Amino acid sequence: MEIVKGRSINLALSCRGREALKHVGLEDEVLKTAIPMRARMIHDLDGTCHPIPYGKSDQFINSVDRRLLNEVLLTAAEKNPQVTCHFNHKLLKCDFNTGELTFLTKEGKEVKNKVDLIVGNDGAFSAIRRQMMKDTLLDYNQEYIPHGYMELTIPATPSNDFAMGVNYLHIWPRNEFMMIALPNLDKSYTLTLFMPFENFNQIKTEDDVMDFFRRMFPDSIPLIGEKFLKEIYQSSKALPMVSIKCSPYHVKDKVVIMGDAAHAMVPFYGQGMNCGFEDCIVLNDMLDKHSDDLELALKAYTEHRNPDAKAIVDLAMYNYVEMRKSVNSKMFLLRKKIDNMLHWIFPNSWVPLYTMVSFSRERYHLCIAKRQQQDKVLSSFIQVGVVSLMVGGFLLVRRLNQTTDIVTNLQGRIQSLLDRLHL
Amino acid sequence: MEIVKGRSINLALSCRGREALKHVGLEDEVLKTAIPMRARMIHDLDGTCHPIPYGKSDQFINSVDRRLLNEVLLTAAEKNPQVTCHFNHKLLKCDFNTGELTFLTKEGKEVKNKVDLIVGNDGAFSAIRRQMMKDTLLDYNQEYIPHGYMELTIPATPSNDFAMGVNYLHIWPRNEFMMIALPNLDKSYTLTLFMPFENFNQIKTEDDVMDFFRRMFPDSIPLIGEKFLKEIYQSSKALPMVSIKCSPYHVKDKVVIMGDAAHAMVPFYGQGMNCGFEDCIVLNDMLDKHSDDLELALKAYTEHRNPDAKAIVDLAMYNYVEMRKSVNSKMFLLRKKIDNMLHWIFPNSWVPLYTMVSFSRERYHLCIAKRQQQDKVLSSFIQVGVVSLMVGGFLLVRRLNQTTDIVTNLQGRIQSLLDRLHL
Repeated sequence: MEIVKGRSINLALSCRGREALKHVGLEDEVLKTAIPMRARMIHDLDGTCHPIPYGKSDQFINSVDRRLLNEVLLTAAEKNPQVTCHFNHKLLKCDFNTGELTFLTKEGKEVKNKVDLIVGNDGAFSAIRRQMMKDTLLDYNQEYIPHGYMELTIPATPSNDFAMGVNYLHIWPRNEFMMIALPNLDKSYTLTLFMPFENFNQIKTEDDVMDFFRRMFPDSIPLIGEKFLKEIYQSSKALPMVSIKCSPYHVKDKVVIMGDAAHAMVPFYGQGMNCGFEDCIVLNDMLDKHSDDLELALKAYTEHRNPDAKAIVDLAMYNYVEMRKSVNSKMFLLRKKIDNMLHWIFPNSWVPLYTMVSFSRERYHLCIAKRQQQDKVLSSFIQVGVVSLMVGGFLLVRRLNQTTDIVTNLQGRIQSLLDRLHL
Repeated sequence: MEIVKGRSINLALSCRGREALKHVGLEDEVLKTAIPMRARMIHDLDGTCHPIPYGKSDQFINSVDRRLLNEVLLTAAEKNPQVTCHFNHKLLKCDFNTGELTFLTKEGKEVKNKVDLIVGNDGAFSAIRRQMMKDTLLDYNQEYIPHGYMELTIPATPSNDFAMGVNYLHIWPRNEFMMIALPNLDKSYTLTLFMPFENFNQIKTEDDVMDFFRRMFPDSIPLIGEKFLKEIYQSSKALPMVSIKCSPYHVKDKVVIMGDAAHAMVPFYGQGMNCGFEDCIVLNDMLDKHSDDLELALKAYTEHRNPDAKAIVDLAMYNYVEMRKSVNSKMFLLRKKIDNMLHWIFPNSWVPLYTMVSFSRERYHLCIAKRQQQDKVLSSFIQVGVVSLMVGGFLLVRRLNQTTDIVTNLQGRIQSLLDRLHL
């Protein structure tokens, strides 16, 4: 199989993706070749490492190989007698009235085909979506972030072992930069360096590379190997990342777009593939609900899925800051601890955001709503603390001065002001 | 000249557009055929009308005919020996490295041309911008609003006069719907009906048309004429409106997009053309500033113009609500009166938002910033009022009860709480 340059080598499979694979009986087969990652392993600048678990002991994400995953899915599809695969057909145009598609084959021949339903799972630069933008009133937003990404490698050790603890997603958070590493079956790690393009552009010579790594990721140098690091960095290219939202996802009963074609996201929540796979469950549910009436089902699919996809695109953008920056902050770590403690006390009613997103099928937009609710509750706790302190102070003052009703009166006013402050 | 269906027949020319025309010596010629509109004329449901002036007596906007304006501009361009016009050439593709453009002529012939600089003034559905989206990292946002627009007409009266007061932009604000009328040189009015598409779709028969107009715009029926209203409505089509933002506007020293290609906006601030014309002044300034170094000038153009264009696109979207809804609100009219009063007292330092946008060349993003500053000042006035009231109350209580320092102490606390409240 051809390896497509510029696509990530491994992906993080979690609950939503697993559920979708289970629906088609492939979960076990995919998990057989997956490597569980139970925690983030934070690499500080001085080389010390500390893990931040993803959740409880049975909650982990899985490093899966994109090529292996593709093979499992394609093999299963080809076994289905209703499926015919045509490779190397580039879509030139399609007609949403007749359902006619025009492709260009590798040999330069134009091929036409007429279908009942066009399902556009053709990625962030979707040709189907481009046609929708031409022919229909599609709301559309694309945003490139200032960071690019570059894939590097930590090879297996000479004794053919993993160079670092294996069941982790390793993170080197450096505020404006970040490097992550996911384990592969061949005991190598795929490293991904995220950095503003302007910084990539400043690193020109082999000395620049070494200087940068010595300053930013010194503990990674012996693991990659100095010679290999110079080689692989100089032969690699920083690639852009784009965030895409649009609406609607369908046109009449003729076309629907799914996955990255409908909602490309930056990779910082590890939900791109999981969300795309979950799309299939949702579309399936809508087809069932509307007894395969395509027009109703596609409309319902857009209405149901759009707020969720927009929510995870936003969350991924938010995590773009969290992963490289916030994990370095004491407040962030304290909040994680409070969240985990409350989750331990109220396992069903207080679920941390990351857990909802990665280890449940809670609708994405509800994950955000619930997190906002949690933030409010925590603020109220703080408010109650502050008010108790003030009321206590007043009572003390009152005893000391034996003052009259005015104090009580003013206490009421302060209380009402505090209420309005939402402290 | 061919009339392009779906484009508005008249446009509202104000300060920025006039300034740009003045730069090329065409302001007077265009104004000769323009009809000044000094106020909005609000038509209430019961037929009563009341004007809301746009500004001071010398501040008015101008209804200009799109066809006449085009003719003036083209005639002037053709007089310039450096300009050659080619009509009916559809851009198929362009190459931002070589500057080569490929066009398709009306006769179906492919024509190529190589240029130093491509200036894409090719409208909201810009082919140049589409090529930029393919070849570069363009941030892009397009949003269709739920309303469509339909152009109707109020003809001149049988005695060949205007059917309504002429120096007004007539508005029938109906919250969810809105109709406006701009005067034409032939003493007709171009009516534009703005309404959600779903409402347009509900009006099917001639009876539906009449029923709708009787309920919503009864005073307009005798002006349009019942028979003509039925005819023109049934033969017209509701058209969509799109709002577009993108960034950057240029690629290296090879291409720049301007006007609707760079920042299409909904028509509710009357700034689409004015903003596009002002683009030309800004680009000219940047070329002067950078001594015609294209790479520097285009970069500076994007950096300078992008925040302003985004601001006016947002303002136009905001006015989409204001024009059809807020003008019906007492608070809105009170605010307009306070604004005008303060503008009268402080003519230079307190300029109402509409005045800044339509009657000055204040940068659009500063118009928004200054308005926010004004809102803060007004809030502070209210705050001072509330605090004075409370302090007065306390002093009264204090005299009545002869209480001690505690009151002063608590007053200080309340004051600081009020400060945090930003009342």
